[in-house]
Amino acid sequence: MSTESPYDPELMAAVTDLGDALRELLGASVRTTVGAGELAAAAAGARAVSARLAASTRHRDQLPSLDDPVAFRRVYSPVTGVGSAIAPPLRIRRERAGGVVAEATLGSQYEGPPGFLHGGVSGLLMDQLLGAAAMSADRWGMTAHLELDYRAPVPLDTPLLFRAGVSATSGRRTTIAGTIARADRADRALVEARGEFVTPRDELMDSYFGSITDAAGRHAPPGRGATDATALDPDA
Amino acid sequence: MSTESPYDPELMAAVTDLGDALRELLGASVRTTVGAGELAAAAAGARAVSARLAASTRHRDQLPSLDDPVAFRRVYSPVTGVGSAIAPPLRIRRERAGGVVAEATLGSQYEGPPGFLHGGVSGLLMDQLLGAAAMSADRWGMTAHLELDYRAPVPLDTPLLFRAGVSATSGRRTTIAGTIARADRADRALVEARGEFVTPRDELMDSYFGSITDAAGRHAPPGRGATDATALDPDA
Repeated sequence: MSTESPYDPELMAAVTDLGDALRELLGASVRTTVGAGELAAAAAGARAVSARLAASTRHRDQLPSLDDPVAFRRVYSPVTGVGSAIAPPLRIRRERAGGVVAEATLGSQYEGPPGFLHGGVSGLLMDQLLGAAAMSADRWGMTAHLELDYRAPVPLDTPLLFRAGVSATSGRRTTIAGTIARADRADRALVEARGEFVTPRDELMDSYFGSITDAAGRHAPPGRGATDATALDPDA
Repeated sequence: MSTESPYDPELMAAVTDLGDALRELLGASVRTTVGAGELAAAAAGARAVSARLAASTRHRDQLPSLDDPVAFRRVYSPVTGVGSAIAPPLRIRRERAGGVVAEATLGSQYEGPPGFLHGGVSGLLMDQLLGAAAMSADRWGMTAHLELDYRAPVPLDTPLLFRAGVSATSGRRTTIAGTIARADRADRALVEARGEFVTPRDELMDSYFGSITDAAGRHAPPGRGATDATALDPDA
């Protein structure tokens, strides 16, 4: 049984499609070799699209109408958001044996050293994956510590496998470990990550999230009420 | 004296302008509340721009013509690239007293917990900053270890200050420490980072970067020849 709130499926499809289109555009923008005149025309085209989107906007304290802070559905997350062009997006699923898993193939827009994933992008993705592993164990928290060991460079344009699972809990603190590997060499970790996530005390929750509302204007702090981590991926 | 190679200033201006336009578009895309019909029109507009850019592209082993791998000018870096819509972009400058510094104000597209920076984005940006600090000491390396302590949440839409400096060196290994703080409370670290960067041995350099060329087709591995870190920011 899912605790997810209902959402407008037509709007979700449109946000997802725009996210896909913007992701393609970012990919094209870092590989293009067209000249300055064509780049200027592309910039003008992008600004016309921006103007269309800016016709109606939300306040930054108001969550998108498609979000569900309790079920952690965040459509503009820079890692998992279907509507975020920064996000691959990672589709994080709960594993039967415990922990979470995701697959992704990352292109040139995430490049660090030529041909390889930016080391910081590994950190970005693993922070989300470790946090999702905590949530999958009903232990939502904010990152208190993140640590990564880079065993070998992570190749671009190659199917990758991301895994994470809770290794220890203590009070409000959850310790999680995870790895990045090539999908065809899942046993060999290219990156090993460890994180500590802490559920803030009530007074800190109020201080951090006191002004956050959902699209209807109701107070909507992030979800310590989450009880069903299948919401990590609506399709799972 | 700069070791930077010359580049086409008109092309650089056009790539920078398109980067700005795409960054604005990403910002607009995560704050819009227009309906499904308008989102569909925006997606069609974005795909028309992509098609224009895809008319001519580089192979992924070939660096962009504006890049200078020796001077570490990477126009599509997901952290510092003027042409990357993922990047804020961070403009990293060398400090007189040693180390590097950058300022940025980060919007909703980088959100983690509502109202705050995604913990993984802190990791993404600090990885680059620590690496730049190593380069500023003429010690290029790849990330071997990255570690972050999150002391307090980092606010969005708030001027931030990023600092890093080399704390120790040993053979091919460079240890760097850095912080993220609000620009108006520079003494109070919200995030503390430490990293170890390692310059690969020659045989690993060949194995990692043997196929990388510049836009003219010449072999162009990343730059252990860098001797002038003012190239970290062409304007510095």
